[in-house]
Amino acid sequence: MSNNFTLHPQLAKDSVLLADWPLCQLRLINDRQYPWFILVPRRADIQEVIDLSESDQAQLWQESAQLSRLLKAQYQPDKLNLAALGNMVPQLHVHHIARFKTDPAWPAPVWGKVPAVAYDEAELAALQAQWSGHELTATNPKE
Amino acid sequence: MSNNFTLHPQLAKDSVLLADWPLCQLRLINDRQYPWFILVPRRADIQEVIDLSESDQAQLWQESAQLSRLLKAQYQPDKLNLAALGNMVPQLHVHHIARFKTDPAWPAPVWGKVPAVAYDEAELAALQAQWSGHELTATNPKE
Repeated sequence: MSNNFTLHPQLAKDSVLLADWPLCQLRLINDRQYPWFILVPRRADIQEVIDLSESDQAQLWQESAQLSRLLKAQYQPDKLNLAALGNMVPQLHVHHIARFKTDPAWPAPVWGKVPAVAYDEAELAALQAQWSGHELTATNPKE
Repeated sequence: MSNNFTLHPQLAKDSVLLADWPLCQLRLINDRQYPWFILVPRRADIQEVIDLSESDQAQLWQESAQLSRLLKAQYQPDKLNLAALGNMVPQLHVHHIARFKTDPAWPAPVWGKVPAVAYDEAELAALQAQWSGHELTATNPKE
């Protein structure tokens, strides 16, 4: 099944690849209003977390915790938001958003609140360079 | 720390206790428009999933998977929504919502979409009786 993984076209349109972690693609949502990342397990035909095998679920939450720690260290947000919704795009993707009391949607959830504002190319390239460097850290958490 | 757990008053107001699982209170949000449950780890001073110990995180996701399986079997939803937001109520609580294409917020997330509609007392009592019976199943998943 995992050989047939293809990214949903809407996710491909809304986000850019930062790194391939052991289970998931780490992707950045192209909206500069929030540090907004998604983890997409490279498994075919998965809609819910519980559709993954037990070992894949454990790996997903390891990668989620690693991403959360990196977001907390990098951005010092007021709150992290973590969500697997999928009402519009059923392919499993787990949102990780660093939220601030000053961001345009606070305290509401970000979805559907204000239109996305794309990064410019230089910003995107810098973020891609920065986050691809977290790959080794992510596979070897030292905590 | 765990001895000092007290439920946030807003969560106490918005939800009712269904069962005490090994780590979490399983609570029902009092809104009959959606089958909407939360898991609240009985630990003091926890805002983010990563504030929990590693073993508590693993237990949280076990209980989350168990709840998800029960919701899928019980309600056969079009989609499960899973989220830890906490922008309004910082005490960690993980939403598990059975979503339907016919529900009043679909396909948007449920938060802030339409005002809650409370269950009547008989409905609440029936749900409490039903879900308290899932406690043993939850502590002994057989999959």
